Amino acid sequence: MNKKMTKYIIGKMLGVEAILLLIPMMVGLMYSEKESAYFLVASTLLCVCYFIWGRKEPEDTMIYTKEGLIIVATAWIFWSLFGALPFFLSGCIPNFIDAFFETVSGFTTTGSTILMDIESMPKCMNFWRALTHWIGGMGVLVFVMVLTSLDEKNSMHLMRAEVPGPEADKLVPKARGTAQLLYGMYFILTVLEIILLLCGGMSLFDSVTHAFSIAGTGGFNSYNNSVAHFNSAYIDGVITVFMILFGINFNMYFLLLMKDVKNVLKNEELRAYLGIIAVAVVMIVVNITPMYHSVGKAFRYASFQVAAIITTTGFVTVDFNLWPELSKMVLLILMIIGACAGSTGGGIKVSRFLILIKSIGRELKSMLHPKGVSIVKVNGKRVKEETMRGVYVYISAYIIILALSVLLVSANNYNFETSFTAVLTTLNNVGPGLGLVGPVENFAKFNSFSKLVLCFDMLIGRLEIFPFLMLFTPTLWNKKF
Amino acid sequence: MNKKMTKYIIGKMLGVEAILLLIPMMVGLMYSEKESAYFLVASTLLCVCYFIWGRKEPEDTMIYTKEGLIIVATAWIFWSLFGALPFFLSGCIPNFIDAFFETVSGFTTTGSTILMDIESMPKCMNFWRALTHWIGGMGVLVFVMVLTSLDEKNSMHLMRAEVPGPEADKLVPKARGTAQLLYGMYFILTVLEIILLLCGGMSLFDSVTHAFSIAGTGGFNSYNNSVAHFNSAYIDGVITVFMILFGINFNMYFLLLMKDVKNVLKNEELRAYLGIIAVAVVMIVVNITPMYHSVGKAFRYASFQVAAIITTTGFVTVDFNLWPELSKMVLLILMIIGACAGSTGGGIKVSRFLILIKSIGRELKSMLHPKGVSIVKVNGKRVKEETMRGVYVYISAYIIILALSVLLVSANNYNFETSFTAVLTTLNNVGPGLGLVGPVENFAKFNSFSKLVLCFDMLIGRLEIFPFLMLFTPTLWNKKF
Repeated sequence: MNKKMTKYIIGKMLGVEAILLLIPMMVGLMYSEKESAYFLVASTLLCVCYFIWGRKEPEDTMIYTKEGLIIVATAWIFWSLFGALPFFLSGCIPNFIDAFFETVSGFTTTGSTILMDIESMPKCMNFWRALTHWIGGMGVLVFVMVLTSLDEKNSMHLMRAEVPGPEADKLVPKARGTAQLLYGMYFILTVLEIILLLCGGMSLFDSVTHAFSIAGTGGFNSYNNSVAHFNSAYIDGVITVFMILFGINFNMYFLLLMKDVKNVLKNEELRAYLGIIAVAVVMIVVNITPMYHSVGKAFRYASFQVAAIITTTGFVTVDFNLWPELSKMVLLILMIIGACAGSTGGGIKVSRFLILIKSIGRELKSMLHPKGVSIVKVNGKRVKEETMRGVYVYISAYIIILALSVLLVSANNYNFETSFTAVLTTLNNVGPGLGLVGPVENFAKFNSFSKLVLCFDMLIGRLEIFPFLMLFTPTLWNKKF
Repeated sequence: MNKKMTKYIIGKMLGVEAILLLIPMMVGLMYSEKESAYFLVASTLLCVCYFIWGRKEPEDTMIYTKEGLIIVATAWIFWSLFGALPFFLSGCIPNFIDAFFETVSGFTTTGSTILMDIESMPKCMNFWRALTHWIGGMGVLVFVMVLTSLDEKNSMHLMRAEVPGPEADKLVPKARGTAQLLYGMYFILTVLEIILLLCGGMSLFDSVTHAFSIAGTGGFNSYNNSVAHFNSAYIDGVITVFMILFGINFNMYFLLLMKDVKNVLKNEELRAYLGIIAVAVVMIVVNITPMYHSVGKAFRYASFQVAAIITTTGFVTVDFNLWPELSKMVLLILMIIGACAGSTGGGIKVSRFLILIKSIGRELKSMLHPKGVSIVKVNGKRVKEETMRGVYVYISAYIIILALSVLLVSANNYNFETSFTAVLTTLNNVGPGLGLVGPVENFAKFNSFSKLVLCFDMLIGRLEIFPFLMLFTPTLWNKKF
């Protein structure tokens, strides 16, 4: 294990966060908020770390998957620890575990909050919350790769560990080029959304923070009532469309840039994703129309919530905890499915389910014809057996982590719906759950231990289990560390 | 597809059920119950079916896995349909779907009931309920194989489709010999239990019905309060031990018969099973002792419920729905894990979890050392990749069926705990759930559609998904049928 290079890259990453913290500081200065000083404090601390570890490149720069996984896992933890400092030091979130929870929820684009009164927070803090979503959405390491250069091999090890989905594709031959391209498209879509929100009469601050939150499929909002605050069909519509757009694999946008519309239309994951959204909206509209006495209103709420949940954004325009059980179950299933691979959304991902369902079909076929060889194809391409094994093991680990987390969180003695959906919503980086963690509730009620378990779930969900699970593998620490 | 042979075997099986129905009829005659006549009616109908389909063996007797799966799936459905007739015709269960639910619950050894007042049922009906557990536990087809002869190849196709666990082992070279041996050990253990229960002061009728229910890890009971009716520490103890014994792979008893104690002690699944039981009991005892003000009482209740749930028997001595959430979650996880492969218990099975956890470990290892070849071993033997793939696909299908069933059942608009655990307990063939399907509740409250969904879950759980899923595969029906 290349200990020096690992430290060096982590040091470098902390330096990037030091710069990042200056943005909310400036926002605070614009609004003359004294709390902005605490961003400078945290930034200074990070600079010190950078100077200790991240300044001088070691001679041996070779790293492998092992180092890549460790770097990704520890980087996310450190970013969250330091990112929590402004909340804690300013007293805006007086408990450090709460501040850590909020920051992890931000970077992992979960959007679950421990805040009881969001509107009383200074603007610089709410801006920082939105910014963590925006950076976390595309990946903190991918962000670092955009800004600083790492050599080609190293970059792919890091990228593979961070980009969601069963397989990480490079768009262009170089990893750094891919990272820049991704952030470029991400930036353009975000700007486009800001403009459309401004047209709806939102203030600049609200437009930017909402756009950041949506782009990262996060869910933090500066208002206690989330998007319901605006009560505008136009804003609901714009946000619904953009949530769906950010749940799509960014490769699709690249294909559009290359004018390859045919492959976009033929993409099975995209079709499945849009199909699931359509079916879910129809089911919920039929189920909730009697509640609202209007198909139009039911459609507006249903489409917004379906988009918010499947993309794992978690914005809210209505307290869906009051919906009939059937609609709530549809949302719960959407939470688990999640968005497309290669998007900023969380969950298990549509493509993994595609592979799973096709492989069940194959298994049934091979039971009937034991001697026939059958393969699983997605988008006309054969899925490698390793990829499939990866998906299977992922699902297995997911279930075991889900069950153990629910067990640990149930020690709070809240009802089953609350414990189960608290874990489900954090593990899938959604935001709100049902019951006592429903859309109008928050996560402050859990004890510190449960909050740490949920932080673990958010991180393990965002990093897709393995980088994080690896930290607990004895073999990793056995040799030469 | 050999249509004639399929019909012939199913016809033969219905003949066996005709004989079986005469047993509760005789019990009814002993107690001079007029309802016993309805067993004769059902039996006569089955005889007619036997004479139509099952009397003359066709010339071509070859069947393959495909036919095996179809025979198993349809046999279980027909047995349940005809087995429900006495309940329905006698008016003891006036709704046919309820009667079907009760019979499916019996044969699949689930033990969920739709009866509100079990004690008002005639003795012959309660005896039939217990008998369905006893036959269903070891498998209705295995039972048929004990009584009638099928040629060797056919037998293994049928047995593989019905015996629980990732791999079906033959104990002796011939399948029929294995079936007879299994039923022999099953019979001896059952008799032993009847004797021990008689020693505890139970009536002969109660001893036999309880022993049948426990042997099949079913859970039907002739008393509204289940085992709590007796309020005897001795009876609780005997039942706890026998529940655990029937959750063990019957191969272990065969090894003991062969005096091969060493391999029994080394068996990883057995050790894991007993380990899980021990950990679960300790956790629950610690958690519920404050409720009962006595460690002894807490231990008695905890060990009984842990054994009842992990073996998927589902007997009850205490309303565990009132326990703290943590203990309820422990029980929920035990429901999913289930008993050992090759036992009469349901659930996913301990051996599947062993394979899963080991394969997660292997995946982590192979991420660290991509070029190293690592294998998964259970009991010192390498697990074949096909077996592992089978386990993965099983788990994947399990989750998808679980999620869709919860969705369908939630249309009843009961709370999440109720909908979720109703599906979980039926899919794992346990019996009671939590909330409105808790230990002191029943399943009568669901609408007919949900009851059919839950019947489907019980059957799919008992037959381990694939034989049943196969019926819905278009390829099965496409060709030459």
